[in-house]
Amino acid sequence: MIRFDSDYIEGCIPEILEALTKTNDEQCIGYGKDPHCMHAIKLIQNAINRPDADVHFMVGGTQTNIAVITSILKHHQGAICAESGHINVHETGALESVGHKCLIIPTNDGKITATQVDTLIKAHYEDESAEHIVQPGIVYISFPTESGTLYTKQELTDLYAVCQKHEIPLFIDGARLGYGLTASCNDVTIQDIANLCDVFYIGGTKVGALFGECIVILNPAYKKDFRYSIKQHGGMLAKGRLLGIQFEELFKDNRYLTIAKHAIDMAELLAKGFQDKGYSFYFPAQTNQLFPILDNEKLKELSQEFCFSKWATIDETHTAVRFVTSFATKQENVEKLIKKI
Amino acid sequence: MIRFDSDYIEGCIPEILEALTKTNDEQCIGYGKDPHCMHAIKLIQNAINRPDADVHFMVGGTQTNIAVITSILKHHQGAICAESGHINVHETGALESVGHKCLIIPTNDGKITATQVDTLIKAHYEDESAEHIVQPGIVYISFPTESGTLYTKQELTDLYAVCQKHEIPLFIDGARLGYGLTASCNDVTIQDIANLCDVFYIGGTKVGALFGECIVILNPAYKKDFRYSIKQHGGMLAKGRLLGIQFEELFKDNRYLTIAKHAIDMAELLAKGFQDKGYSFYFPAQTNQLFPILDNEKLKELSQEFCFSKWATIDETHTAVRFVTSFATKQENVEKLIKKI
Amino acid sequence: MIRFDSDYIEGCIPEILEALTKTNDEQCIGYGKDPHCMHAIKLIQNAINRPDADVHFMVGGTQTNIAVITSILKHHQGAICAESGHINVHETGALESVGHKCLIIPTNDGKITATQVDTLIKAHYEDESAEHIVQPGIVYISFPTESGTLYTKQELTDLYAVCQKHEIPLFIDGARLGYGLTASCNDVTIQDIANLCDVFYIGGTKVGALFGECIVILNPAYKKDFRYSIKQHGGMLAKGRLLGIQFEELFKDNRYLTIAKHAIDMAELLAKGFQDKGYSFYFPAQTNQLFPILDNEKLKELSQEFCFSKWATIDETHTAVRFVTSFATKQENVEKLIKKI
Amino acid sequence: MIRFDSDYIEGCIPEILEALTKTNDEQCIGYGKDPHCMHAIKLIQNAINRPDADVHFMVGGTQTNIAVITSILKHHQGAICAESGHINVHETGALESVGHKCLIIPTNDGKITATQVDTLIKAHYEDESAEHIVQPGIVYISFPTESGTLYTKQELTDLYAVCQKHEIPLFIDGARLGYGLTASCNDVTIQDIANLCDVFYIGGTKVGALFGECIVILNPAYKKDFRYSIKQHGGMLAKGRLLGIQFEELFKDNRYLTIAKHAIDMAELLAKGFQDKGYSFYFPAQTNQLFPILDNEKLKELSQEFCFSKWATIDETHTAVRFVTSFATKQENVEKLIKKI
Repeated sequence: MIRFDSDYIEGCIPEILEALTKTNDEQCIGYGKDPHCMHAIKLIQNAINRPDADVHFMVGGTQTNIAVITSILKHHQGAICAESGHINVHETGALESVGHKCLIIPTNDGKITATQVDTLIKAHYEDESAEHIVQPGIVYISFPTESGTLYTKQELTDLYAVCQKHEIPLFIDGARLGYGLTASCNDVTIQDIANLCDVFYIGGTKVGALFGECIVILNPAYKKDFRYSIKQHGGMLAKGRLLGIQFEELFKDNRYLTIAKHAIDMAELLAKGFQDKGYSFYFPAQTNQLFPILDNEKLKELSQEFCFSKWATIDETHTAVRFVTSFATKQENVEKLIKKI
Repeated sequence: MIRFDSDYIEGCIPEILEALTKTNDEQCIGYGKDPHCMHAIKLIQNAINRPDADVHFMVGGTQTNIAVITSILKHHQGAICAESGHINVHETGALESVGHKCLIIPTNDGKITATQVDTLIKAHYEDESAEHIVQPGIVYISFPTESGTLYTKQELTDLYAVCQKHEIPLFIDGARLGYGLTASCNDVTIQDIANLCDVFYIGGTKVGALFGECIVILNPAYKKDFRYSIKQHGGMLAKGRLLGIQFEELFKDNRYLTIAKHAIDMAELLAKGFQDKGYSFYFPAQTNQLFPILDNEKLKELSQEFCFSKWATIDETHTAVRFVTSFATKQENVEKLIKKI
Repeated sequence: MIRFDSDYIEGCIPEILEALTKTNDEQCIGYGKDPHCMHAIKLIQNAINRPDADVHFMVGGTQTNIAVITSILKHHQGAICAESGHINVHETGALESVGHKCLIIPTNDGKITATQVDTLIKAHYEDESAEHIVQPGIVYISFPTESGTLYTKQELTDLYAVCQKHEIPLFIDGARLGYGLTASCNDVTIQDIANLCDVFYIGGTKVGALFGECIVILNPAYKKDFRYSIKQHGGMLAKGRLLGIQFEELFKDNRYLTIAKHAIDMAELLAKGFQDKGYSFYFPAQTNQLFPILDNEKLKELSQEFCFSKWATIDETHTAVRFVTSFATKQENVEKLIKKI
Repeated sequence: MIRFDSDYIEGCIPEILEALTKTNDEQCIGYGKDPHCMHAIKLIQNAINRPDADVHFMVGGTQTNIAVITSILKHHQGAICAESGHINVHETGALESVGHKCLIIPTNDGKITATQVDTLIKAHYEDESAEHIVQPGIVYISFPTESGTLYTKQELTDLYAVCQKHEIPLFIDGARLGYGLTASCNDVTIQDIANLCDVFYIGGTKVGALFGECIVILNPAYKKDFRYSIKQHGGMLAKGRLLGIQFEELFKDNRYLTIAKHAIDMAELLAKGFQDKGYSFYFPAQTNQLFPILDNEKLKELSQEFCFSKWATIDETHTAVRFVTSFATKQENVEKLIKKI
């Protein structure tokens, strides 16, 4: 069985295991105050060219989203997000479990627009019974989205302008950030990201680390007391060094982008394979997640040898599925798959 | 600087890093459904002699406590615990953040008694305005406690009998379980633990793993839907294999107890060092946490070379402090410390 | 200015004020344990022909919804409801504030169907990552809906059958129950309601009382400890007698239905007025809420003399608005309005 | 049976029922925006001599406490209060249910001191692991306390100074405010209250109203968006006029203090009765709650004719009990009781 069902099926880049082994006997203070975390913070501040940024390390995505959003929202506020946003559909209501509603915006491709956000916020304040409705308190987007699509620089710029107009922060979930930054169609740099939002996070789990997400807080208004929020949401790793060491390795020698680019190369190879055979895609093929539409016969056949996910029923005989590549995807496996398409 | 400030200052036992390295290229399904987790579950069921137990792996202690407690409590219920209980004092209100109150019981040594629990529960139901008061819904204890002390088998038996009488579950936080099981004064086995509570967890983070806690659910009433709770509280590690692999290593060849015993040996060596010099202890010296009372001159002097924590002010010239040993503590460092006492 | 903007713009039926005055000097035990509450409970059990029902009185609708839903849901569960459901749109996220997500179903007329509910629940359990998604734990509907529409007896029967098939409770919000039961097109009795759900409530605030809602719990599984939930959500009125006295009056001599019928008569008179002039309605005109579509000139003109609410923009020159009648609506005011249409 | 078990056993002052009757046919906009509320707000701003204050009306005490506290606290913060504080012991964990911990201070008489608060806050920030502990975010006290005792003006001044030093708001629960202001030993005016805290509330339910509490927000920092909080916590009464009308009557002609003074007169008469017979009190007899210590024979005897509450077991033969007077207590009943003491 060859797995293409997600980008967290392999371990990590070998450099990380080497570094963990090399540093194993060091005695480090806990909870992210050790020298490795301090060094990784510097590397990331440099990479985004924002020495003023506050940088924190978390273990996983759900706790990252919750820690950020609850540290910002007041009790009567909610998070604007795409209907398909991870916080809305795939976190078992973690956000609601700590008190906040998702204010959802319909989407076809995982993206929401500046106009949609503007309309929603305006409509809220124009409503005579606004007080009976959850107040928009933050805008949450993913880059890339859960549908594998990307915002252009212009789209991000417009979204952030609307947020700033309404004095509401923009938070970018970058669980797959590397795979967005290195996509061929992408025109956004990591420095752009840092300048076009209030908070974002750099995904490690899906991009080469064993685990780990790196929160970057740009807006000074949201820096105070953030570590309380990390701890309250179970995100403060006792041996915080493990996160520091991993991000040291990921941000050494531009490695984060290099390894992400490999996944993109593999995805583009695979996308071409599908296109050459005349397959169409459910969402635009832009990053490391591909959503080809298969007839159900072919789906069944491929399932014998390859792992991938059903995504949506198209009609009685066709299904959209998801194939995912990663930093660790082997070209020979992609080629084996293409042969069977 | 030699650190004795906690049992999570070093990495992990070398076998874990070797296993992570050896398995790094494997493709595994995510979220704890991989073969390593399945195997580790079997090893743990065997170790506790309870093949019927449900076993789940989590990353850290706070999320473990919250996932267990919220999966059991109804909204109007709270958790009975010692005033010094970890959920009450050192989790930034994580339990309250998801809706539940700690119903605290005073304690001098971190332990609560069957009588105290019985009295609290009876008093609740005898109160005419019981409905205005949070209903006791679970009893939470730690073994060893946050004060480094241990329940005897008789004490545990009595506590569990009271819980069963009142039809309220008993949950044992075993963040340092290994250091309790291997203590010289201990008369409780891991099988006893499994038979004297409804749910408990086996701490990995502080006992040889890089990170990881293992929840064991004995009472069938609390097994259903538990994985939703793991996910909701940010505890479902994408690369769940990392937890499986670590617990495979910890429960191979009785390793969990062997490495814990080392910490106990080191703690007993150190405790003897203090006793020989006439120091007294703030809490009984039973496990890997020692709380000697130092005069402030000595405290200052030792602080030059050793890391440890201030715990409580005794009087103007004396302070209780905490020294902690671990699976990785070096005997030469303990000896250096003893020389300076 | 004549108000048609809601059904809570007047005080109450005069009998209630008389009864409050007559009983004012009585000394009654607090919190709903007084003789008036006991008597009102009997009257309601008789009216619904369910002596086994548990009956509780609350002050307002939001706290009623929250007390019921949280007393039933486990932490990882959410409430299925129409997109337009009151809990989803007009309670400032009260349900989320205590931890639960609304699992919304699209609707054109405020109603959801048995098929929609069945599909949503099946889809949940068929999803491989169900654990990452909030589990459906209760179905919430309103009778009448927020759009003024009614479920037929067959529709309710089907909905309840689906709920029972999936072992998930059905909760009916009856904030305007009286106006549903007495509508001309209605074929559901209050006894039917009691037999076709697990919990429902009988609205008092909008149907003749100063304030007050009456929760009826039919399913024994949800009776235990419910008063804790009332108190926790701020719904336990100190002078609970005030609720008992009001519901005594409402359920004396079939008064609840008599006064509701008056509002329906007024609404039908008004609806006919609109229809006669050729107006169409945004939602079917079934109960005491009417949603005619006005051209904006007429809207402006009517606004000079009458209070009513804008509901939805139809096109550049037309707007759907809401007129509401109540137990206290005066026929002369309806006639004045009809003249101006 | 003559009841002395609480101050909410009778209805209300007759003027309120008359006003409700007189205004019953008025059509008023809902949710507290009607002319009666507007007028009552002015009366209260005048009474406290703070035209800048924001004034809001709520139905009951629990929802009032929760609405205020959650509108102020951030997620990682908790409320400092006396161990006996109402939010800590008699609201079924309402505060925890929306995410916040009570940070309790021990007390013998229901009061906490400036020094205690100062010590707790300082200790928090001096703790190396402050981030692992709930951050103090508000100070909650009751005037009078749940033990019937009063803060002196100096004590309040000191408490508020400590709060301001630490930039943490002071919130005063005035459920029985009238009975504090009119007590013989009291040296605090309602204007003092308004100047010595950030938010307080004026209790109506226990002081002459059918129900109703009036929140007064002095500190501009906490005014914004407060109505969202009222609604989210189920405190926004549809027929808000009912609250406006009641507070209009209570604050007409100094009536609030006049009726409260009656309860105090009755309590002092009763206290003297106990003292003359040589009884001692569990808490100082200062306001309308008296806590005499009875021998159990006498307790049993009095229970035949009078309702009152057991409060605390003193020894095998003695019990502290609670007698409460109110605006409606009849002197003849007090005299009957005194005869039987």
